[in-house]
Amino acid sequence: MASIARSSLRMRPAMMRAPVARAFATTGARRAAYFPDEPAAPTVVSAIPGPKNKAAVAELDKVFDVRSVNMLTDYSKSHGNYIADLDGNQLLDVYAQIASIPVGYNNPHLKEVATSPEMVSALINRPALGNFPSADWANILETGLLKVAPKGLNQVFTAMAGSDANETAYKAAFMYYRQRQRGGPQTEFTEEELQSTMRNQGPGSPQLSIMSFKSAFHGRLFGSLSTTRSKPIHKLDIPAFDWPQATFPTLKYPLAEHAQENAQEEKRCLEEVERLIQEFHNPVAAVVVEPIQSEGGDNHASPAFFRGLREITQRHGVLFIVDEVQTGVGATGKFWAHDHWNLPTPPDMVTFSKKAQAAGYYYGNPALRPNKPYRQFNTWMGDPARALIFRGIIEEIERGDLIKNTASTGDYLYAGLQRLAERYPEHLQNLRGQGQGTFIAWDSPRRDDIIAKSKAEGINIGGSGQNAIRLRPMLVFQKHHADLLLERVEKIIQKL
Amino acid sequence: MASIARSSLRMRPAMMRAPVARAFATTGARRAAYFPDEPAAPTVVSAIPGPKNKAAVAELDKVFDVRSVNMLTDYSKSHGNYIADLDGNQLLDVYAQIASIPVGYNNPHLKEVATSPEMVSALINRPALGNFPSADWANILETGLLKVAPKGLNQVFTAMAGSDANETAYKAAFMYYRQRQRGGPQTEFTEEELQSTMRNQGPGSPQLSIMSFKSAFHGRLFGSLSTTRSKPIHKLDIPAFDWPQATFPTLKYPLAEHAQENAQEEKRCLEEVERLIQEFHNPVAAVVVEPIQSEGGDNHASPAFFRGLREITQRHGVLFIVDEVQTGVGATGKFWAHDHWNLPTPPDMVTFSKKAQAAGYYYGNPALRPNKPYRQFNTWMGDPARALIFRGIIEEIERGDLIKNTASTGDYLYAGLQRLAERYPEHLQNLRGQGQGTFIAWDSPRRDDIIAKSKAEGINIGGSGQNAIRLRPMLVFQKHHADLLLERVEKIIQKL
Repeated sequence: MASIARSSLRMRPAMMRAPVARAFATTGARRAAYFPDEPAAPTVVSAIPGPKNKAAVAELDKVFDVRSVNMLTDYSKSHGNYIADLDGNQLLDVYAQIASIPVGYNNPHLKEVATSPEMVSALINRPALGNFPSADWANILETGLLKVAPKGLNQVFTAMAGSDANETAYKAAFMYYRQRQRGGPQTEFTEEELQSTMRNQGPGSPQLSIMSFKSAFHGRLFGSLSTTRSKPIHKLDIPAFDWPQATFPTLKYPLAEHAQENAQEEKRCLEEVERLIQEFHNPVAAVVVEPIQSEGGDNHASPAFFRGLREITQRHGVLFIVDEVQTGVGATGKFWAHDHWNLPTPPDMVTFSKKAQAAGYYYGNPALRPNKPYRQFNTWMGDPARALIFRGIIEEIERGDLIKNTASTGDYLYAGLQRLAERYPEHLQNLRGQGQGTFIAWDSPRRDDIIAKSKAEGINIGGSGQNAIRLRPMLVFQKHHADLLLERVEKIIQKL
Repeated sequence: MASIARSSLRMRPAMMRAPVARAFATTGARRAAYFPDEPAAPTVVSAIPGPKNKAAVAELDKVFDVRSVNMLTDYSKSHGNYIADLDGNQLLDVYAQIASIPVGYNNPHLKEVATSPEMVSALINRPALGNFPSADWANILETGLLKVAPKGLNQVFTAMAGSDANETAYKAAFMYYRQRQRGGPQTEFTEEELQSTMRNQGPGSPQLSIMSFKSAFHGRLFGSLSTTRSKPIHKLDIPAFDWPQATFPTLKYPLAEHAQENAQEEKRCLEEVERLIQEFHNPVAAVVVEPIQSEGGDNHASPAFFRGLREITQRHGVLFIVDEVQTGVGATGKFWAHDHWNLPTPPDMVTFSKKAQAAGYYYGNPALRPNKPYRQFNTWMGDPARALIFRGIIEEIERGDLIKNTASTGDYLYAGLQRLAERYPEHLQNLRGQGQGTFIAWDSPRRDDIIAKSKAEGINIGGSGQNAIRLRPMLVFQKHHADLLLERVEKIIQKL
């Protein structure tokens, strides 16, 4: 479809060009709206932030740091893909709480889940999950988050959010690594290990490492932040572990025109990964990677690159952790982004959060359960209330065939953006995410201006890294929303 | 009251002694039960775990590590202070989900909160709190968790659980420390800092430290685990920061008989703290301490010790973080355990979780907000659903005057345990927690046997450290529960 659209567009003389989105308006309208009560279009009735929002932010500022506040939100007036503020503005939301709302604001099915007796109990009788799980915990897992477990991974450790999902996965990797080194799960700790770990020294607290990639984002607690390499502002003044970073490929776009160059770049990066595994002074227990570097610039790599990572890690006895915190749960047009890779063997662990509304890591190898209880443990180990919400999300995804919707809407949106990029090449550079659902991004030298002006045009949109606009619509984002987005993006660019 | 009870007991000849609890049975009955539908006594109808529990655990084991499972729980049949399993057993619960259930299972007021429209919205429209807080977030904070903020601390950063509450507090401390070193919030980062932090190296990622105490527990993620010194099993194989640990006082009991010795011990420990601050190779940005070391053995220290810590840290420009994750929210007979200390100036930060069901850190000094936005930030920054539950808990505490209840029930329970300790000195040693509400513990050489046998006697009870039994009843634990507990503890001991 994209190629037809492109060729037909190319044949039209420039002066006759209608706004790009229009071409698809009727196509878009053919499909019924997933949210019948959703606004038909954004409403902008005030400057944003408007007077009520400003007053409310000033009030909140007294007790809570508001310098990162984007918009105080009236969730009671937010519906489906539309987010509302206090001044009566309703914006098409393609940022979706930093990519973490999957099935729309005030989704009716989630409302049912939220008022179910199970939910009430989960909220008011919060268990210490490792000690006193509820009788139905196995069932909640099996009918919920394990139902969508990545292929080959049939177990889960639940956590609270992306950072601790990653950190508990790292802990599992370190314990597994040392256990193997020690001679297997039956080998007891030495007295020296028992003593030294209480002083935070080796061998009990070993100088091992997790390798991540430049521009990666894996969270902001001390272990996860040591693998995060997105921006200095995320890391400054916080002590970090001496862990290695490899170069993530910088691909050139359009991909089709730079195939050989990009393959070379990925090869170079894989060689660096292997070299670091062999040479870095703190031995590498695991490599962690995002399928798409989602905070550090929306950087993509090919399936071949990730297969290469899997191969190298396996060959060197290093675990391979895929951080699907932002890419998981459908946004790339498959449930997990790594489903696009056609891996010969699954990742050792896959971490999740955000659109799952719950968090944790999946694994398959039973040896990733540490050799003794209470080694991987904490009081809550997640939140069953959020696990119930995830189950509701999964049900809603199935009911609405929302992954398929996201794949096809994504293709449609990508084609439209491609035409915009041809028309405004200075403002849409390195368009990327083709075939990756709605997980689409592009670079713009005036990125910050575009974001700043988007609210006045009825769009809530976010950035990634230094120059990228990242699209993170919900899974209920449909073609008519794509039309609207394309139309508004074009307007914003025209007004720059 | 305790002293009268003790003296009257002492005068009775040994052979006439009735079970210790009986003496108070009528007193206990005078007060109306807080939960009218609560069982009058434990019911034990099977071995624990019984057949249904065993089968359910085997099922759960397929997908979830169950080696730490204490008891699969039927929360629908758990009420007030009583926890139910799948086999029809109902136990008096003085462990309370590792000290994290404050107002009883299936508390009716929390049920109302859980089904409120606000809760539904918080569950299904989960905000990225730093970017898109809900319009009523300021109000939820002000009528909820800030209403009970420790004296002098009027702001909050919300988190998910105890570990990240502590770690975000540590991050605030490091940023504050470096900011001051750098010359204040207006001083920009140097190019060297910006570059080096991306490599996890100084000066951008500085070699600073957080000082904690031997036997402390502050969580299990990488930064918090580096301050945790409870048991090797919590720490083994996990890389740790090279941070200092000071000795926590080991007090001798009864306190009244060892006043001078204990004061000496505390003085010695304070001197060590000061020496480490002055000499440790990685400069100390903050000292973190639990009011009672709640995982590492229920170790207490005097208010004078904590005032000493406050004085030393202040004098050396080191922040003083009080970790009230386990002690906070009423269990010690005051809302915050550090309310017992009569500090001349408040702690710099107080962290909370568990009984709050929400988490975060309180602070007062505006300079603890980092100098730029997005330095202390993450996607969710807590969970408004859990903040609403905390507000409900606070309302329930006020309605039932539950802190006062805990203080007086605690005194009553302590007096009973004191008599038990006189009768069974080999099984109740170093009884501690007098005047600390129900936050009571004692050591026993046969601690593990006592815990193992307690379920058969209808009691769910936990340990702390190597030898301690820790009592962590809920705030709705009343004198008649105390009578029952005393009676059953005596039975367990008699059957050892």
